[in-house]
Parts: sequence; C-alpha cells; structure tokens
Amino acid sequence: MILEHRIPAKYLLDIIKYELIIALLAGMGTRLLAGIFTDDVPLMPLAIPAFLGTSISVLLSFKMNQSYDRWWEARKLWGAIVNDSRSLILQLQSFVSTDQAPAIQKMAYRQIAWCYALGKSLRGQAALDNTNHLLTPTEQKAIAQHSHHPLAIMQLNARALQSLRSHKAIDAFGHIHIQETLTRLTDSMGGVERINRTIFPSTYRLVLHFIIYLFIITLAISLKNVSNLLVVPLLLLISAGFFFIEKIAFHLQAPFRNRPSDVPVTDIAETIEKNIRQLLGEAAKPEAIVKKSHYIL
Amino acid sequence: MILEHRIPAKYLLDIIKYELIIALLAGMGTRLLAGIFTDDVPLMPLAIPAFLGTSISVLLSFKMNQSYDRWWEARKLWGAIVNDSRSLILQLQSFVSTDQAPAIQKMAYRQIAWCYALGKSLRGQAALDNTNHLLTPTEQKAIAQHSHHPLAIMQLNARALQSLRSHKAIDAFGHIHIQETLTRLTDSMGGVERINRTIFPSTYRLVLHFIIYLFIITLAISLKNVSNLLVVPLLLLISAGFFFIEKIAFHLQAPFRNRPSDVPVTDIAETIEKNIRQLLGEAAKPEAIVKKSHYIL
Amino acid sequence: MILEHRIPAKYLLDIIKYELIIALLAGMGTRLLAGIFTDDVPLMPLAIPAFLGTSISVLLSFKMNQSYDRWWEARKLWGAIVNDSRSLILQLQSFVSTDQAPAIQKMAYRQIAWCYALGKSLRGQAALDNTNHLLTPTEQKAIAQHSHHPLAIMQLNARALQSLRSHKAIDAFGHIHIQETLTRLTDSMGGVERINRTIFPSTYRLVLHFIIYLFIITLAISLKNVSNLLVVPLLLLISAGFFFIEKIAFHLQAPFRNRPSDVPVTDIAETIEKNIRQLLGEAAKPEAIVKKSHYIL
Amino acid sequence: MILEHRIPAKYLLDIIKYELIIALLAGMGTRLLAGIFTDDVPLMPLAIPAFLGTSISVLLSFKMNQSYDRWWEARKLWGAIVNDSRSLILQLQSFVSTDQAPAIQKMAYRQIAWCYALGKSLRGQAALDNTNHLLTPTEQKAIAQHSHHPLAIMQLNARALQSLRSHKAIDAFGHIHIQETLTRLTDSMGGVERINRTIFPSTYRLVLHFIIYLFIITLAISLKNVSNLLVVPLLLLISAGFFFIEKIAFHLQAPFRNRPSDVPVTDIAETIEKNIRQLLGEAAKPEAIVKKSHYIL
Amino acid sequence: MILEHRIPAKYLLDIIKYELIIALLAGMGTRLLAGIFTDDVPLMPLAIPAFLGTSISVLLSFKMNQSYDRWWEARKLWGAIVNDSRSLILQLQSFVSTDQAPAIQKMAYRQIAWCYALGKSLRGQAALDNTNHLLTPTEQKAIAQHSHHPLAIMQLNARALQSLRSHKAIDAFGHIHIQETLTRLTDSMGGVERINRTIFPSTYRLVLHFIIYLFIITLAISLKNVSNLLVVPLLLLISAGFFFIEKIAFHLQAPFRNRPSDVPVTDIAETIEKNIRQLLGEAAKPEAIVKKSHYIL
Repeated sequence: MILEHRIPAKYLLDIIKYELIIALLAGMGTRLLAGIFTDDVPLMPLAIPAFLGTSISVLLSFKMNQSYDRWWEARKLWGAIVNDSRSLILQLQSFVSTDQAPAIQKMAYRQIAWCYALGKSLRGQAALDNTNHLLTPTEQKAIAQHSHHPLAIMQLNARALQSLRSHKAIDAFGHIHIQETLTRLTDSMGGVERINRTIFPSTYRLVLHFIIYLFIITLAISLKNVSNLLVVPLLLLISAGFFFIEKIAFHLQAPFRNRPSDVPVTDIAETIEKNIRQLLGEAAKPEAIVKKSHYIL
Repeated sequence: MILEHRIPAKYLLDIIKYELIIALLAGMGTRLLAGIFTDDVPLMPLAIPAFLGTSISVLLSFKMNQSYDRWWEARKLWGAIVNDSRSLILQLQSFVSTDQAPAIQKMAYRQIAWCYALGKSLRGQAALDNTNHLLTPTEQKAIAQHSHHPLAIMQLNARALQSLRSHKAIDAFGHIHIQETLTRLTDSMGGVERINRTIFPSTYRLVLHFIIYLFIITLAISLKNVSNLLVVPLLLLISAGFFFIEKIAFHLQAPFRNRPSDVPVTDIAETIEKNIRQLLGEAAKPEAIVKKSHYIL
Repeated sequence: MILEHRIPAKYLLDIIKYELIIALLAGMGTRLLAGIFTDDVPLMPLAIPAFLGTSISVLLSFKMNQSYDRWWEARKLWGAIVNDSRSLILQLQSFVSTDQAPAIQKMAYRQIAWCYALGKSLRGQAALDNTNHLLTPTEQKAIAQHSHHPLAIMQLNARALQSLRSHKAIDAFGHIHIQETLTRLTDSMGGVERINRTIFPSTYRLVLHFIIYLFIITLAISLKNVSNLLVVPLLLLISAGFFFIEKIAFHLQAPFRNRPSDVPVTDIAETIEKNIRQLLGEAAKPEAIVKKSHYIL
Repeated sequence: MILEHRIPAKYLLDIIKYELIIALLAGMGTRLLAGIFTDDVPLMPLAIPAFLGTSISVLLSFKMNQSYDRWWEARKLWGAIVNDSRSLILQLQSFVSTDQAPAIQKMAYRQIAWCYALGKSLRGQAALDNTNHLLTPTEQKAIAQHSHHPLAIMQLNARALQSLRSHKAIDAFGHIHIQETLTRLTDSMGGVERINRTIFPSTYRLVLHFIIYLFIITLAISLKNVSNLLVVPLLLLISAGFFFIEKIAFHLQAPFRNRPSDVPVTDIAETIEKNIRQLLGEAAKPEAIVKKSHYIL
Repeated sequence: MILEHRIPAKYLLDIIKYELIIALLAGMGTRLLAGIFTDDVPLMPLAIPAFLGTSISVLLSFKMNQSYDRWWEARKLWGAIVNDSRSLILQLQSFVSTDQAPAIQKMAYRQIAWCYALGKSLRGQAALDNTNHLLTPTEQKAIAQHSHHPLAIMQLNARALQSLRSHKAIDAFGHIHIQETLTRLTDSMGGVERINRTIFPSTYRLVLHFIIYLFIITLAISLKNVSNLLVVPLLLLISAGFFFIEKIAFHLQAPFRNRPSDVPVTDIAETIEKNIRQLLGEAAKPEAIVKKSHYIL
C-alpha cells in the first residue's frame, strides 16, 4: 500500500515511461506524415479527438471502478482474516476447558503461521518463510509435502480441534461454533486466491490502449498548424494523465504482485501476530526496525 | 479466461469482422449518397456525431459494467464452490467418526464429480464425462436417469450423509452443519444456472448497435469534404473500438459458452480435485500435458 | 424474458410509437415557428442540444442502471426461490424419518403450488390457477379465504412441519433447520413483493422526458438552415434511440407486469416443479407444447 | 411514495420555485451587466457553459445514484421488517406449545404496534398513536417512560419470550431461533434510524448549486447576442431540469420526512397488520376509506 | 458529521485555499508567458480544456463515488455496532438467569466503554478517556497494559461470558448465541479499523490534481484574447468547484480524523449509552450542554 508520504517522482515516471515514449513517437510520426501529405489531410476537425478524449475518460472510469473494487474486495477479505483470527482465539478461550492452554497456544501459533503463509503464497514466494518461531520442524515438514501450504495448515488446525473434541475438552456446540470460524477463514482464503488468479478481461485493456493511441494520432493531425513547442508537451501531458490512470487501475486489479500498490499482506499478518499474542497474554515480538519508505508490503 | 499471454491478432479481428464490414458499407454508402445529393446535404454539423460518440461511450460503459458484474458474480460463485468443496472435506473429517474414512472418500469423490458435471452441464456438454474415475458405473447410471445431473449427484451425497447419521457415525449437530454446506453448494449451483439462463435485456443491444450505426452515418456525412484516405480508416478504427467493447461485454454476459472469455470451470474443477485429494492424503492425479494457449477453459 | 430469437420489428416499434409521434410534432412545430419568426431566432448554437444530448445519455445511464438492478434483484430472488425449493426437499428427505414419505410429498407439492401462486399473484392474476394437481380442494378452499394466498400456503407448510415435530418424525434440530429454509423463502417472497409494489421515483421519468423534448426543440431550432429531408429523420432516429432506452429501463423496473421483458416466473416455477419431482423420484409432468415465440413468461 | 397517478403540475412546480427565481435573477442580472460592459465581455465562448452543463449532469448522476441507493436501502429495510414480522408469527406458531395462543397473540399485537411506532418515530411524530387497539394502557404507560419507544416495545417482546421459556412453553432451540428474529428486527430498526439520522454530505449540495449557477451565468454571457425571447425560457427550462433532478435526489436521501416521496411506512405497517391478523386467523381490521391522492405515506 | 445548519463561509473557503492560490498563480503565469510568446502560441483551441473539464468531472465522479462508499460503509459499521450493542443487552437479559443482574450490568457497562474506546482509538486519541464511570480502576489498569484497548475490553467481556457459563448462569445455547454477537462486534471493530488504516490509492489523487492544473493552463492559453476581468474569476470559480469536490471526497475517504466531516463516533457512542441504560432500567446520564455548531463529532 502506498502511504501518503512523499512519493518519489522517479517512481511515478517509471510507471508510464514506455507508454509515453510510444505516445511521443506516434504523435511525432503522425505530424511528420501530416506535414508531408499536407494537402491530403486538410480538415481533421478537433471535435474528433475531443469526443475521443471524453470517451476515454468514461471508459477509464469504468476500468478504475472495477479495479478499485477488486483491490477493496481483497482488502476486505484480509480484514475478515484479521477479524476471524481474533475471534478464533476469543472463542477457543471461551469454549475450550482452561487446562488446555498449551493446545490453544499451539492452534493460535498455527493461525498466525497460516496468515504469513497465505500472504507469501499469494505473492508466489516461499510460503513457510517467517514461520520458524510458530511451527515445529515436524509440522513444517508435513506441510511442505502438500502443494497448497495454507490449506495444509488449516487442516492441521481442524484436526487439532477434532482432537480437543474427542478428548472432551470442548463440547459439540463449541466444536461447531469454532469449525464455523475455520470455514469462514477457508472462504477468505479462497476469496483472495480467486482475485489473484482471475485476470481482468485483458482484451479490454488492449482496446483502451488502442483508443488512447487513436486519440493521440487524431489530436496530432488536428493540431498540425499549431507549433510543435505547444503540441508536444500537450500530447505528452494529456496522454500521461490517461496512461497513468490506466496503470493505477492495472496495478490495483492484481493486488498481490509484490508491488508498492499491493494489499499490505505482510504488514497485516504482523498486526494479527501482535493481536493474537496480546490475547494470549504474551509479550509482543520485538518490533523490527523499519526503513522509512513511501509504501508498506 | 483469456490469459495475459500474447493474444493472436487474428482472434481479435475475428471477433468484430462482421460489424466492421457493415460499418464500412454503411459509411461508404452514406458518402456516395451524400456525394450525389450534395446540395441537399449541406451542413450536418460535426457536433451531432461528436455528442453521439460520447453518448455511445456512456451507454457502452453501462453495458460493460453490468456484463462485467455478471461475469464476476459467476466467478465468485465458482469461488464459493471451491471454498465449500474444501470445507466439506474438512468438516467430514472433523465430524464423522474416524472409522468411516471410505465413506468420506466416496462423498469427496462425488463432490469432485459434481464440480465437473456442473461445469459441463452449464456449457451444454455431456455432464458425466471425466467422471469415470470418480463415480461407480451404478452411480453413473442412476444419475443419468435424471434430467438434472448435478442435482442428482447432490442428492446422492445428501442421502449418504443421512445414512451416516442413521448409522450413528455422525451426531445431529454435525449432520446439520454439513447439510448447511450442501445447502450453500445448492445455492451456488442455482446461482450459476441463473446467470447462464438469464439473457441480458437483448433489446438494449439492438439500440446500442442502432446508435453506433447512426454515429457512423452522421460522421460520414459531416466529413464529406475530407478525403476518403483519411475518413475510411477513421470510421473503421473508431467503430472498431466501439464494437470491440460491445463484443467484450456481450461475451462476458454469458460466461459459460465454451468461449475463450469463459469462466474457466474445467480448470477450477481440476484445482478442486487437486485440493480435495491433498486433504484426503492421496497422491495428485497426474498432471495433463497442456498446450500453451492464450486462454484456459 | 425476451429471448435472443429474432425480435419482431413491429414489437420494437410499438414500444415507442407515442413518444415518436410527439417528438415529430414537437420538432416540426418548432421548425415552423422558427421559420415564421426567423429574425428573432437567429443564433441558437448547436452546442446547446449537443450538451443536452450528452447529459441525456448520462441521466439515461443512471436510470438504466437502477432499473437493471431491480430486474436483476428480482431475478436473483427467484433464483433463491429455486435454490431453497430444492434444498427444502433435500432437507426433508435428510431429516424426516423415512416412513413419512407421503407427508414429504404433500409438503413438496405445496411448495410447488406456492411458487406458481406467488408468480401469479405478483402479476395480479388468480393465484390458485394451475394448482389443481398440487393442492387438495380442501386446501384450496382454506387458502382462498385468505387475502394473501402464497402466505397462506406457507403457513400450511409451517404447520405441517410442526405436526411432524409433534409426531416425533423430526427432531428439534431438523425442525429449526427446515424452519430456517421456510424463513428464507418468506424473505424471498417479501423481496419480490417489495420490488413489485415500490414505484421507481416517477418524477425522475417526467424530468427525463422533459429534457429529451427540450433537446428535440433546441436541435430543431439549431438546424433550421438544414433541409427537412435530413433533419426529420435525424430528429426521429436520435429521439428513437433515447426513448427506446428509457422504455427498456421503464419495463425492467417493474418485472412482473405480464410483459415480454418480465422475469419469467411461470417458466421458473415449471423448472422448480420438474426439479422437485425428480428429487421425489417421480416421472416428470408431460411437457406442454410451447409455441415458438421471442419471449417466455 | 409517489404513485403513477397523474401528478399535479402545481406539486411539481412548487418543488423548485425558489431555485428558478434565483436562476432567473442571476441570468437576467448577468445579461444586464454584460449589456453595460459590452466591450469588456467580448468573447465568452459557448464551450464553457457547454462543458459545465455536461459536468453538472455527471455530478447530478452521482448524487441521484447515492440518493436512490439510500431510499432503496430504506425500502429494503422496511421490506425486511415485513418479512421478519411474518416469520416471527410463523415461528411462534411453530415452536410455542399450542396452549399459549393468547401469549402468541399478545406478542403479535406488540409486533404490529412496534411497526407503527417505528414509522411514527422516524417521522418525528408521536410514536404511540394508532396503537390503542394493540397495546394495553399499562404497556403504553411503561413504554412512554422510555426515550426510545420502539426499543421499549422490543424489550417487552424479548421479555415475553423469556417468560415463555421459563414456563417451559418453548424449548432452548425455539428460544434461540425466535430471539434471532428479534435480533434481525433490531438490526432493521437500527438501519432505518441510521439512514434517518445521517445527513448526506451537505457540502456536496452547496458545490452542486454553485456550479449550476456558474453554468447559468456563463451561459447568459455566451448568449448575449441572442434575443431575450429565446434565452430566458432556455435558461429557465435547462436549469429547471437540473434543479428538479437535484431536488428529487435531495428528497430521496431523507425518506422519512413526511413528504410525498417518503418510503410509505404507514402503508407498510398496515400491510403487516393485515398479514399478521390473517396468520392469527382473525378478521381483517375494517379498511379505512382512503382519499384518492397521487401519493401514499 | 456536518449538519444542515448554516455552514460558515470561512469553513468552506479554508478547505480549498491552498489549491485556489496555486490555481491562480498557474493561470496568471500561463497568461503572462502566453502574452510574451504571443506568436508561438497562436491557436490552442478551446475544445482541449473543454474536453479536459468533462473528463475531470467523470474522474471526480468516480472518486466521489468510492469515497462516499467508504464513508457510508464506516457509518454502516457503526450502525451495526449500535444494533449489536442493543441486541447484546436484550440477549443477556433473555438468556442469563435473573439473579445475575449485577453481572449483566457490568458487561453492559463494558460494552459502552468499548464503544467510546473504539471511537477514540480510531481518532488516535486516548482510548480510555470518558470511561471512568464505566470501568473500575482495576479494569482500566489491566486494559491499559495492552496495545489494543478495545480488543482488551472485548476479551474481558468474553471472559465474563465464559465465567457465567462455568457458574451455570447460562446454558450452552445462550453462550454460543451471545458469543456470536461478540464475534459480530469484533467484525465491526475490524471493519472500521480497516477503513481507517487503508489509504485510498494516493497516486490517483496526484493524477487528478495534475489534470486539473493542466485544464487551468490550457484554458488560460485558450482564452488569452479575453479580458483578465472575466478570465480570472472564471478560472478561480471553475477550479474552486473541482477542488472543492475533490476535497469533499478526500475528507470522506478517511472518516475518523477528527474533522467536521467525520462519522460522529462520539455522538453515536452517547446514543448507545442512552439506549443501554434505558434497557437496564437506569436513569439517563445527565445530558451535557452542547454548544450549537454546524457539525457533531
């Protein structure tokens, strides 16, 4: 997530540099050609690029809307993971007999590990990193044999719950109640995977780029009598605006790609660890020293 | 689902070829007529096609919005099917007494078969293909007698659950809890069928096409003094943009038609099979060799 | 629901014929007046109708959006009715002791009758038609005494459920579980009634028509130097597009008025009957011979 | 709720009369000033008011959207109240032992009274009017002592439910089940209160009015060479359209203010009374004679 | 929340003063430069700023939409907190044995304290202020040791509930039922924290500002032949409209920053205290004397 700290200009420019170069070439090429065939290109009226520009803003607005919705849905799902992680501990403490504190702690640690692992696996990173202080080597080995690590951790906790039940440390009602929380966590896991694996209709993006270039070319022809000193920056600045919004949307669509605009899953998992440890009555993990940056991950 | 791999230009052009030909004929025909009656058609101001163009982008944006929502809702429902399939297995393992592993496996296999069958039946294909390794011949025969195959599979699982209950392998609470998961799966099944069978108001599409052609004709008249060399590509390119977006929307509306833009139900069902087999502790089904393509189904 | 079959042109034209006649009269009247007072009406710039046209498309887009949402919500509620009808049977079969098959069948038939009756009553038709094969004469008579027929059928089923409980054919858990399904069906019933009885803010429609006529009049004045041969079809075609979209929206808003654009409640109820009979293991009702039409109801 | 009956023109005009007078003064004043300083105000191009007009329609569309959503959410919440009121009676009849019919009737009457009281209190009227036939004088007195009358009625019903439980007239499961219905009713009550007490960002309205007046002034300057005979009606008609939509939105935002555009809470409460009495097997309350009007409350 | 009382003009102007100064400087600077290089800047057509202006309104509309949705979601979550706080007390009174009134009162007071503490902590203020009349010094001290005060209060109530259970003052069903209410409250707490900590994509804001300045500069060039007397106020007024809407959106996005446009969490918590005390049968807390202001917090 990009913070409101001062965002470096270099970062902003990097985002759209290729598109701007192509826009510049397209615009300049068009003006050169228009200069050569000056009599054949007499009267491209400005109304054409003007309405194209308005249309682009409408189409961008749709794309921005849907992309923001995906990003916000992803954020909501991680919010639900925070909530259900907290509730899971409160419920375990409320329904499991008090002599089972070690079992509760073990399940709580696995829940923290699940959060880290889910975040990592969404980003295509090694899911079991950062879990040495939470999982035993045996557990890690068992989990590593599965192809879907977070699901394997979830199954361990479901079995631990069943084992509490078969040892009469929890009754049927508590069992169901906590299993429902695990089901909600499974739903959230599936939800973020869905967002991560479903590509936004990619042909839409092609058409949008196509119309933006059409806009640049028709604008370049329309303004062929205006000085280059004015037209070049104008073309660049307007197309920069359009491409920038398109890129913001493109990045928001896929919020787990290790980019500054990501949903900050690692940061959220650390919050969950802090909250769960508080509920367990443990001291907080020593805060890592963070470098000041314009984003968190 | 169309992947972000390079999409073949031929595929893109095929999508709108008929519309482009009609657009070309309409535009050229208009210019010819305007050339003939040149004195009667003196002053169609460019403001007319310009505002029509803006209006088209607004109306397209609405259509794109609703179509995307249908597609995304379909994707969400299949996401819920993934989640509930996983949860079903976790719940069976948590609530059914451990000596019933074969019964659990049988229900799990039926659940996988249900996913394949639902995907196939949405696409109007033979629903029981790909289920030989999951259903016994007796089951297949029983299911085939019904008109609604996925519902028949669901009923088999509901009966299996009741049979576990009557054999005391599950208690009343677990019975209800798992029955609720079946109910959610029934809801998801009904949801995707609803999307599949409900046609987006088809008169809207007619009006949209009508206004796009009106735009082309008025634009052709307005530009009658501009050279054909400029007007023909302009007409074609702008209408290509409009028709393309309309077609994307049209395809997203009906996401189970065996088209590249479909919700990839077969791919999802394979993921479910992989996940469920992992939860059962089974080896994964040998991965099929996939041809690299620009889409998955 | 209008199918994608070829929609008759007459049907399309009928929808907007009154509006088009008024539009023609307004446009022509304006031009006549403008011709008479030709010196007083010198310079209505085309920018006025152009921006009005764009504004109309924005306002229409809002209306189309909300109307579509109502229609889709109505369709979703009927989808929920399909789902809960299926689930009701599965749950009865799962929780009621097996010697009660006749009672289950009776409740299932009442559920089918409820679907037909709800659809009919939404359209203001006799709610108990088509239910002779489902309800006994005694039941029909009892229901007919109530002012709200579907609610009366629902109450009969709630009582049947309680009777099963008091005869120990179902335990407390199953009772609650199935009562929850009846509650969801009650919610869906209330939902479609809400859509049916709540009028979309009707003043909005007045303003929209008002602005469309304002557009036609200002356009007619602006184009007063252009030949009638061009202006009349232009006025008619553009206003046809606007009025058509407005009418589509108007029809979608109220999806239970016995119009081709309705949610096809009868068709859905027939599907439910087919599904429930399959779940009961009965032969399907003989398919009625349907006349091929461009819509279903 | 405004019905589709013929809406009196006076009602429509009353809604925007102040805004129209200000618009007229602003427009005329501008023209006068522009006439005086005619050389200093040479060239306000029409493109300025034209793009402002388009922008206004976009901004109005947003406002209309959100306002409609609030109104529709309020309507949905009252729909949920209808559903849960019906379900409450069905559940009481299903779970409370049959010898408790008088207790059920008492709770049902309180539920009806709660609906009337909630509607009245939302409109800032005396909440206990219209409840003499439903509540005993003792109950009315007890309720009147509380600051929140509907909540006090709800508490009476919650206590009645607990009393049924402590007299063993209902078991634990039924108790929970019906308490959940009361919780949903509490949620709906809180929901409509939220809509009623939360003011739509009122600064947005100020800016919108500001831009509309800016539009009128720039349009008046742009058209300074056009005859007053044409400009005055044009200014009035266009701004009437804008102000009217703004007012519709403004009224929809706050749907419990005793205005014709309200959610018809009294009408809905009467429907609930009719439905509940039917479920209790009572004769309907004699229908009040209603004056034909263009709206219901 | 800003009330509909007269909003001071100073407050309104303060909101956008910096943006207006920059806009003025940019516009004037451009005009000066355009005056100097008057031959090089001959023909910037007005269509450029006009379409930019329309585009800005579209992009602003998207931003306003999402910001309003965040604000409304935050308001809804606080509405859910009101509902669940009321329901919690009704449920405690319904399920806990009547001799436990002091324990219920203690939990009710903690629930009130939780509401105040959550509101304060969202605004980054001392969370335990205003809770002296609700929490004992021992409780306050225990809570103060945790980093997350509202979560600590929630845990105290969860433990109190478990203690009621272990003392047999509540049965298993009531325990689960009330624990579910605590879970919903945990969800609402997580929800408002999510909104508070998630920054709206801040690059979007940069682009929007960038395009508004681009609009101002191109407009200033286009109007270079129009008198300063007209252009300066025009530039200022139009950009004031745009910046104002952007600022409204910016403030709505983050509704817990101690600003007049906040969700009024303190006011809501006071309502909850009043309602809960009524349900407990206590006298209301003496109303604080409020200064009349144009907003509440």
